[in-house]
Amino acid sequence: MRLYLRDAITELAAATTRVIHALEHVATEQGAIALPGYTHMQPAMPSSVALWARGFATELDDDRAALKRVHARTELNPLGSAAGYGVPSLPLDREATRAALGFERTQEPVTAVQLSRGKAESALLFELALLTGDLGRLAADVLLFYTSEFAYVALPAEMTTGSSIMPQKRNPDVFELVRAAPATVTGALTESLGIIAKLPSGYHRDLQRLKAPLFRSIDLAEDVLTIMAHALPGVRFQPANITLGPELYAAEQANELVVKEGLPFREAYRRVAARLRGEES
Amino acid sequence: MRLYLRDAITELAAATTRVIHALEHVATEQGAIALPGYTHMQPAMPSSVALWARGFATELDDDRAALKRVHARTELNPLGSAAGYGVPSLPLDREATRAALGFERTQEPVTAVQLSRGKAESALLFELALLTGDLGRLAADVLLFYTSEFAYVALPAEMTTGSSIMPQKRNPDVFELVRAAPATVTGALTESLGIIAKLPSGYHRDLQRLKAPLFRSIDLAEDVLTIMAHALPGVRFQPANITLGPELYAAEQANELVVKEGLPFREAYRRVAARLRGEES
Amino acid sequence: MRLYLRDAITELAAATTRVIHALEHVATEQGAIALPGYTHMQPAMPSSVALWARGFATELDDDRAALKRVHARTELNPLGSAAGYGVPSLPLDREATRAALGFERTQEPVTAVQLSRGKAESALLFELALLTGDLGRLAADVLLFYTSEFAYVALPAEMTTGSSIMPQKRNPDVFELVRAAPATVTGALTESLGIIAKLPSGYHRDLQRLKAPLFRSIDLAEDVLTIMAHALPGVRFQPANITLGPELYAAEQANELVVKEGLPFREAYRRVAARLRGEES
Amino acid sequence: MRLYLRDAITELAAATTRVIHALEHVATEQGAIALPGYTHMQPAMPSSVALWARGFATELDDDRAALKRVHARTELNPLGSAAGYGVPSLPLDREATRAALGFERTQEPVTAVQLSRGKAESALLFELALLTGDLGRLAADVLLFYTSEFAYVALPAEMTTGSSIMPQKRNPDVFELVRAAPATVTGALTESLGIIAKLPSGYHRDLQRLKAPLFRSIDLAEDVLTIMAHALPGVRFQPANITLGPELYAAEQANELVVKEGLPFREAYRRVAARLRGEES
Repeated sequence: MRLYLRDAITELAAATTRVIHALEHVATEQGAIALPGYTHMQPAMPSSVALWARGFATELDDDRAALKRVHARTELNPLGSAAGYGVPSLPLDREATRAALGFERTQEPVTAVQLSRGKAESALLFELALLTGDLGRLAADVLLFYTSEFAYVALPAEMTTGSSIMPQKRNPDVFELVRAAPATVTGALTESLGIIAKLPSGYHRDLQRLKAPLFRSIDLAEDVLTIMAHALPGVRFQPANITLGPELYAAEQANELVVKEGLPFREAYRRVAARLRGEES
Repeated sequence: MRLYLRDAITELAAATTRVIHALEHVATEQGAIALPGYTHMQPAMPSSVALWARGFATELDDDRAALKRVHARTELNPLGSAAGYGVPSLPLDREATRAALGFERTQEPVTAVQLSRGKAESALLFELALLTGDLGRLAADVLLFYTSEFAYVALPAEMTTGSSIMPQKRNPDVFELVRAAPATVTGALTESLGIIAKLPSGYHRDLQRLKAPLFRSIDLAEDVLTIMAHALPGVRFQPANITLGPELYAAEQANELVVKEGLPFREAYRRVAARLRGEES
Repeated sequence: MRLYLRDAITELAAATTRVIHALEHVATEQGAIALPGYTHMQPAMPSSVALWARGFATELDDDRAALKRVHARTELNPLGSAAGYGVPSLPLDREATRAALGFERTQEPVTAVQLSRGKAESALLFELALLTGDLGRLAADVLLFYTSEFAYVALPAEMTTGSSIMPQKRNPDVFELVRAAPATVTGALTESLGIIAKLPSGYHRDLQRLKAPLFRSIDLAEDVLTIMAHALPGVRFQPANITLGPELYAAEQANELVVKEGLPFREAYRRVAARLRGEES
Repeated sequence: MRLYLRDAITELAAATTRVIHALEHVATEQGAIALPGYTHMQPAMPSSVALWARGFATELDDDRAALKRVHARTELNPLGSAAGYGVPSLPLDREATRAALGFERTQEPVTAVQLSRGKAESALLFELALLTGDLGRLAADVLLFYTSEFAYVALPAEMTTGSSIMPQKRNPDVFELVRAAPATVTGALTESLGIIAKLPSGYHRDLQRLKAPLFRSIDLAEDVLTIMAHALPGVRFQPANITLGPELYAAEQANELVVKEGLPFREAYRRVAARLRGEES
């Protein structure tokens, strides 16, 4: 299991890198396109495709670093603990298996081995919950930008599906499936933590049930990462449809009053607000 | 929030250290007492109070190390990102606040700041779920050992409560409350991950609701750690009640047959099993 | 606890009724306003404010009916079971307390009483998860319609908050807090189910920890219901900003070809699709 | 999906009935065997195998009744709502499909159909979480009673597995797998609620992901019910190993002092407690 986790982390980190590259590609190719920056889903201040794509890329970079920190829970050699109480009378060389398998240390005492079951598994599930969570939020943005009311992005035909009833539609199913993914991983995390909860020390057959939620989530995360690495470069921002109203510059104007006229921000804020409402200031 | 998390991690790590010391105290004072080692809740092989206590101490040590790794998600200075899109026209010195507040790096780009909300919080909640989970399993062992059928441990009167109906009873409420704690933290983790799920980028008022589950879980974890540091040294193992039957040495005997007589383990295993069933071998 | 749950259900059902009335008010006052009906967040077919508001009202009506079905788990009189094994030698009249407190039946055998702890509580939490889930989806619609790109609804000033940095903004915080509510209730449900999991039969102090997530969620659900009953009539749809493009009628046109010309739907669909693409059909 | 749920509920209810019968069989065959009744896992008052088995049977009976109440969320005919906005121009007879498929009512308005997705599914998952939760607690009791320190029950050889290392062991894997089952169903419930959370109204591809956790949990619940119906009659209580100490009668003695000597319970309690401590009273 620990060797498996070690490999899975390496693969997942590499797949995350590919999504980061895809976002960097978006930033390089389309980064200069202006975007409103939103708070509360309301236009707030000027932003850009570069800032949008690199914000997510940075978060994925953090998630990748966190994935690798899970290794700290897989670096211990459990071999030689047998059923959890060692191997009396057999001159077992735990150092030999440690070195051969590339573990950093031998897990001691032997009783810790069974107590640690499910913890590395849960730790990976948690990091996948954050990672797919970030991808889900990215998908939520694309789905919002792809609404016909926003129309900020176009998607290539091969990335959308038709409708069985409505001839005019092109549906962004790919991003909807990504949006749903963190719910599955969070469910698996709840399952994993629930399986080990309250168990007295020592091995129990319950622990065998840790594998299904783990494998399911690793597979799903790999699928989602692969899809996003493929799909993101196809997201085409439509500058003609994106307008940044003058109100987006209100905070900047207030800042300028502070810098140039030495006003306190509170007073500058009041003046710009009055101007926006059409009052003399 | 990040400064708060930084302090909370430091306090929680210190409280964990106190529980590790309490377990080490148990191992030092009572470690030589023999205990059956269990698998499937069945006596399996010889163990000891030292192996029991140090198994948990090692796991708590891992949890403490993992707690500190959460710092990696709190080391970035968000100040200067304002509403998430920076402070145009104001010559803000983000390096000054970074240095003054002791952050390792400045969070860039500004759009990452709001996207990262809830992630450090969830990471701490996850580590607390594992930490209280280990304490809950430790409590489950004590509760099992404290049953009158096991009677492996005695608890001091001040650590038990009386019954309102049954005059003879002394109840181990303290350990029951510890056993229940991880359910609360796991619930808070589910809540925290649910709050941030699917939100488009930028700040949303939803994020304000991250605080309650976080504070609730930190307080609970601190209580549970404090209680356990206080209670564990009072757990008195009762060697007179703990007997290790000869069957516990069956695996060892099989091992000896392997070493001394050169039998394959499978054959040695069959012979010992037959002997235990009262058959000649 | 059961008497408390009984009262809480009655109050929550009444508060739900007030939200249903608020939605009915929206349907009556503004129901004739046309709205695109969406699938995949894409305009699909013609709908209306009446269909929108009454869809949610119907779901809340179902949730209210389900709330009342939780009564089936609170209708049993536990009194007289004492610590869970009855009251030997005391001639207790369980029928008297049953009748006086309005329970439908006496819970038998006495051992079932402790086994049932946490089940009625969890059942109420589950129904509140669905109820606040529906309100959260309703809030998500309002938040989408309130974006400046949709601009389908206006909100009264007293229902929005200003921004501390950006003078031009009016933020829909109320609906964001409603959107976040189901995450809290789902967390509480996970907590409640986790507390009772794996406990051997009989009372345990763990069960005392069921109260906090229950009370927290009931209070939150009541707040959210009260807020929505108050806020919904203030949501003003803006017909001037809502346009239904000709493509929304594509399915209807295909249906008409089926009815009038006797075409199979597949062929009618192809013809309308071609027409929408500007091809001769 | 609704027809599938309807059938699944019927099958699950029938499988639950078989477990209730198995418990009733235990109560009939072995019910007279005395058992300590426990609170806080401590012997509290006299109980019996009949009270033990029938306590669980009653809870399963409640769970079965609750399963059937999920029908209230599956009794609506969605057909004719098409993509969620009806079928303009096509003279569809929704009453015909309703009657043919045995639905109680037609779901109106059409917009409610998509809003209700995931709710019946989640409701079934919740009831399965309670049902498997009760079976998990029953398994926890059997596992406790099967420890060699309790030795209250024996299990037939075909219901236990051997150990690969320790020749003497017979492990109760079956009951351990049952104990772990509710964690899986609770995880699936969290997943299901997470998938539908915050979705704007109308169909989304996310909803397709509801099926996996549902099917997985139904299959698991059916397996667990089948196993328990088969395994429970094989649980043989061992009266020779079960002793009820005199302290179990302390509450009864206090009650008798109340009835016979007219003492207040508080005073009777003090006297019995003193007598148990060996003091004159």
